Amino acid sequence: MIILLKDKVDEKQVKNLTNWLEGIGFQLHISKGEHKTIIGLIGDTSRVDMDLIASLDIVETVKRIQEPFKSANRKFHEDDTVIDIGGRAKIGGGNFLMIAGPCSVENRDQIISVARDVKASGAGMLRGGAFKPRTSPYAFQGLHEKGLELLSEAKRATGLPIITEIMEAGHLPLFEDVDVIQVGARNMQNFELLKELGHCGKPILLKRGLANTLEELLMSAEYIMAGGNENVILCERGIRTFETYTRNTLDLSAVPVLRRLTHLPVVVDPSHATGHSYLVKSMALAATVAGADGLIIEVHNDPPHALCDGKQSLTPAQFQDVADCVRNVLPFRVR
Amino acid sequence: MIILLKDKVDEKQVKNLTNWLEGIGFQLHISKGEHKTIIGLIGDTSRVDMDLIASLDIVETVKRIQEPFKSANRKFHEDDTVIDIGGRAKIGGGNFLMIAGPCSVENRDQIISVARDVKASGAGMLRGGAFKPRTSPYAFQGLHEKGLELLSEAKRATGLPIITEIMEAGHLPLFEDVDVIQVGARNMQNFELLKELGHCGKPILLKRGLANTLEELLMSAEYIMAGGNENVILCERGIRTFETYTRNTLDLSAVPVLRRLTHLPVVVDPSHATGHSYLVKSMALAATVAGADGLIIEVHNDPPHALCDGKQSLTPAQFQDVADCVRNVLPFRVR
Amino acid sequence: MIILLKDKVDEKQVKNLTNWLEGIGFQLHISKGEHKTIIGLIGDTSRVDMDLIASLDIVETVKRIQEPFKSANRKFHEDDTVIDIGGRAKIGGGNFLMIAGPCSVENRDQIISVARDVKASGAGMLRGGAFKPRTSPYAFQGLHEKGLELLSEAKRATGLPIITEIMEAGHLPLFEDVDVIQVGARNMQNFELLKELGHCGKPILLKRGLANTLEELLMSAEYIMAGGNENVILCERGIRTFETYTRNTLDLSAVPVLRRLTHLPVVVDPSHATGHSYLVKSMALAATVAGADGLIIEVHNDPPHALCDGKQSLTPAQFQDVADCVRNVLPFRVR
Amino acid sequence: MIILLKDKVDEKQVKNLTNWLEGIGFQLHISKGEHKTIIGLIGDTSRVDMDLIASLDIVETVKRIQEPFKSANRKFHEDDTVIDIGGRAKIGGGNFLMIAGPCSVENRDQIISVARDVKASGAGMLRGGAFKPRTSPYAFQGLHEKGLELLSEAKRATGLPIITEIMEAGHLPLFEDVDVIQVGARNMQNFELLKELGHCGKPILLKRGLANTLEELLMSAEYIMAGGNENVILCERGIRTFETYTRNTLDLSAVPVLRRLTHLPVVVDPSHATGHSYLVKSMALAATVAGADGLIIEVHNDPPHALCDGKQSLTPAQFQDVADCVRNVLPFRVR
Repeated sequence: MIILLKDKVDEKQVKNLTNWLEGIGFQLHISKGEHKTIIGLIGDTSRVDMDLIASLDIVETVKRIQEPFKSANRKFHEDDTVIDIGGRAKIGGGNFLMIAGPCSVENRDQIISVARDVKASGAGMLRGGAFKPRTSPYAFQGLHEKGLELLSEAKRATGLPIITEIMEAGHLPLFEDVDVIQVGARNMQNFELLKELGHCGKPILLKRGLANTLEELLMSAEYIMAGGNENVILCERGIRTFETYTRNTLDLSAVPVLRRLTHLPVVVDPSHATGHSYLVKSMALAATVAGADGLIIEVHNDPPHALCDGKQSLTPAQFQDVADCVRNVLPFRVR
Repeated sequence: MIILLKDKVDEKQVKNLTNWLEGIGFQLHISKGEHKTIIGLIGDTSRVDMDLIASLDIVETVKRIQEPFKSANRKFHEDDTVIDIGGRAKIGGGNFLMIAGPCSVENRDQIISVARDVKASGAGMLRGGAFKPRTSPYAFQGLHEKGLELLSEAKRATGLPIITEIMEAGHLPLFEDVDVIQVGARNMQNFELLKELGHCGKPILLKRGLANTLEELLMSAEYIMAGGNENVILCERGIRTFETYTRNTLDLSAVPVLRRLTHLPVVVDPSHATGHSYLVKSMALAATVAGADGLIIEVHNDPPHALCDGKQSLTPAQFQDVADCVRNVLPFRVR
Repeated sequence: MIILLKDKVDEKQVKNLTNWLEGIGFQLHISKGEHKTIIGLIGDTSRVDMDLIASLDIVETVKRIQEPFKSANRKFHEDDTVIDIGGRAKIGGGNFLMIAGPCSVENRDQIISVARDVKASGAGMLRGGAFKPRTSPYAFQGLHEKGLELLSEAKRATGLPIITEIMEAGHLPLFEDVDVIQVGARNMQNFELLKELGHCGKPILLKRGLANTLEELLMSAEYIMAGGNENVILCERGIRTFETYTRNTLDLSAVPVLRRLTHLPVVVDPSHATGHSYLVKSMALAATVAGADGLIIEVHNDPPHALCDGKQSLTPAQFQDVADCVRNVLPFRVR
Repeated sequence: MIILLKDKVDEKQVKNLTNWLEGIGFQLHISKGEHKTIIGLIGDTSRVDMDLIASLDIVETVKRIQEPFKSANRKFHEDDTVIDIGGRAKIGGGNFLMIAGPCSVENRDQIISVARDVKASGAGMLRGGAFKPRTSPYAFQGLHEKGLELLSEAKRATGLPIITEIMEAGHLPLFEDVDVIQVGARNMQNFELLKELGHCGKPILLKRGLANTLEELLMSAEYIMAGGNENVILCERGIRTFETYTRNTLDLSAVPVLRRLTHLPVVVDPSHATGHSYLVKSMALAATVAGADGLIIEVHNDPPHALCDGKQSLTPAQFQDVADCVRNVLPFRVR
């Protein structure tokens, strides 16, 4: 970390700052120019509050050289993290994982039928929402406990591990049979929830917030990992931009950027990112060759006759096609 | 709500849709053109899931004419809501309220000293953070219970009501002596928290999220109000843009827009919005003439010697000046 | 186009509007509800000024159903446009084109050396900037006429057609030997320049502006096409977002979206979009499988010893690798 | 400027860099840490190409300490610039200027009538578009030469100086009678146009681009000033954000930020920024107290019966009210 001081600062205040920095364990490297004084910090600056230093009266600017995340940082953990999902699946390293299923769990027939179809097409995990974050309090909020039970049934019926979204730490006891807990985009900076998930023993899939940077995503992963839970899967699901032909804008460069910065697995959600089923295939293939560790795709058993058929859901047959094409390009994945 | 159907849709599917819409209580107004069919819905469409309809296979596009928020809507509640804050202050209607205090509660002397100063300058409520949402898990997270106790002491010492931020519903029992509960920008769409706050008897100050629209802000207010708590204060605190000279971009047109859309009071936070103390005065005055119902401003007792002096905090003397100037322009407020 | 009128509007004003609309050649389809009146326009609405109608006092909202672009619209031109580039290359339809070369033309040795290298690796066109748009008036602005001459030399030496950026219509006479004229992101809405290019006989590569939507990109293509020049190549080169690890955010879903909306060829510039050479390969492959008609990639002969080596430039050897891998995934392109 | 080098860089390359920097006239201040080497540049870094240095292989990061703009910089020109407008009006310093008029010049009666009305209400300059930048080539593009002639007539009739937008340097001869030339948001980075305007003898009103930072705005002003024309008026007219209730988002903190960074006058356009006439008054007053040097407001003579009545235009009577209220708060302007 480099701290640049303002011109003509009071020597006593500088001394206060350097004493404090040394007191919390840093070696300092001070360079006085004619006008400017620069302080270099040597040591683990990920544990320093950069905003606090920037807010000091005598400080002009602070520049971090090391990343502020540590547990997630590839520099300190060179090998890809491989996450074992309940002994039923793996993700990370050489393991590519396709996750598929409906946006919401609707009823027993639906979820079991979709689970069977996506398993046959090569999916390794089943997704399905039981608690749904909705902008309006008047919109359908999911089946809650009932939805979790139906997911468990689908798991027993197919052997597929299951992933579903949590919206508040108090619901954790209901998630016992869930294999991977998902944190949605709107909760990416719900820090109290992240802290609680740091103490649970399950892998967490953490979705990037709608207007968050990758550094913020990694800092949120760091919240979970700081509690002892190192099994975090990062998910790029599109960010908010000015474009209107797509629901969000899929930031595919997030995949190689994250793979350079962190050892954690990275999955891509082309369904939520684009909001249109006709875009899912091209983005799924693009994500794969770009180096993703997995995909999470919405599949619904019978979109044309269902009332709640997301424009973004694939039919099982469409998913079969996407899965086949993904397998075709997998050997060409850039890693 | 206007639903535009796709060209050449199956009559049976159209019938299914219109039956369903009539079944949930709408009058329909169907207009068949040569190519296009348009369905107009008459009735309370705020309770309809617009995404669900948009996702139907036969639907080209859906356009809402009425706003999706109802309890917060000025159309159904013409008069400004006036919120009584523990019998000690009022906001809304003709009542303008200045809220001031430090970013974080640091210690007894600090909070009581600031409380006395801001009261003397005309502030009607004391702010101070006890639970702090921080991007990094390694940054200072606030004094927690101890911070709340110190706020209570300051309240007893000065008579000022107090406002502080909550980060998770489980902490509610600790907030008994708090007069207004603040929901921060990062939790604006933490819907489970909003639902819980809908059942508590205290006024809520709801901050706009970093990249959220005003409609989304109002929908989050609606979550609280749907639970029975109608005492919601909306807060514009800056949005994320590409500009770097300011921490965020204060969206002042939010004030007159919100005042037209809703009867709820609107306050502006020029400190967080700009991130620089030198910008607070001009933005505080601008917010006032633009029609705000109040301001929330960061004030620290002794910024130059404090380690945690936010660049955005005013000294008590600076706040005195801002408060005086705000009073000068208050008669010219556009309402 | 659907025009929704306000409640309780003056009949005379409605009559004025409908007379005017019929006068300019539309058939109208008027539907009066209890509260709302809806006017549907039948005919070619791409030539109607939607903002003008929206601004009328009696109009609540206007919704376009047809796209506002016409010449570029795939609905009226089903087949992919194939553009012939001076008899030396083709793009569009089945023709995939790799464009490569340095950011700026620096000197004869550099441009000819790079041209030979990229041709050997399979590039079908040479890029190189002679007029450079720079944020600062004090930054290097390119070699201008001299740069264009050097490009021509490289063309003669290798047979590769050349593409370079124009910054003002007055420079057109200098571009006689240029095969494709590039319009940069900052000039995407320099409408006077676009109009002039509509009258020149050369293919135009039009880059998407930093914060522009795809509809705005297509409307700018429409400016060129309206002048009679139908040979427009669209280029996705990243948009401005809040992310800082990349220079811009490459919006790869633009490729399948544009391919659905328009018959014009679409190329992707992974170099400018990401700003880092380590990201070019993964994004080049991703763009290819996503369905792009071509790539435009920065290549510099000797980055490690050059002073002006863009962090985003590949060495010729790196480009060889990218080109080989692109060819590997080309058969799997989603079209 | 501070240049931070990468770890373990080749000494020869460092030497090349330092030699080059010294060669172009900088004093260097080199500080070698255990891992990192930092080079400080002393001298006028506004003329250095920061991107070029950042792109060097051995450079990790570059941080500018001085602003990259020089002629516009208040550090080198402490006093406010006062611009004389054809001997008929002044702006800057203590001079507050209201500019008003229609979006487009439509006909003689309209422009002369509006000119008389806004003059009577206290406007000091008349605006009116003759060349209109429109997203669609099929939309009304203005009256061109005819519009300029009508503006001149209105100037003769009222004595008001006139301002209108230029879209290409080739049109400059037509602007002889125009007092202030406006550069629109879409042309803020049309650098060739800016360079030409640097040689014309008239004041320029430069509008901020839709997604541009204030630094970029100042760099564009620098393009004009570098050519010798120091009479630049900056205009905040709203930026593109995710908000939909307003056309753009007015960034009012731009006013005090710009006033700190530059000596040039700053005006605010509340009409284009908000897109709705009901928001103009509150934003006009807010801009005034925030410290603006002037306002530019759309006024149309007879909006209710006009076909092209911008939703954002005020009637002359509404403008009279706004102008009166602006005068009321002018004494409280923060400067």
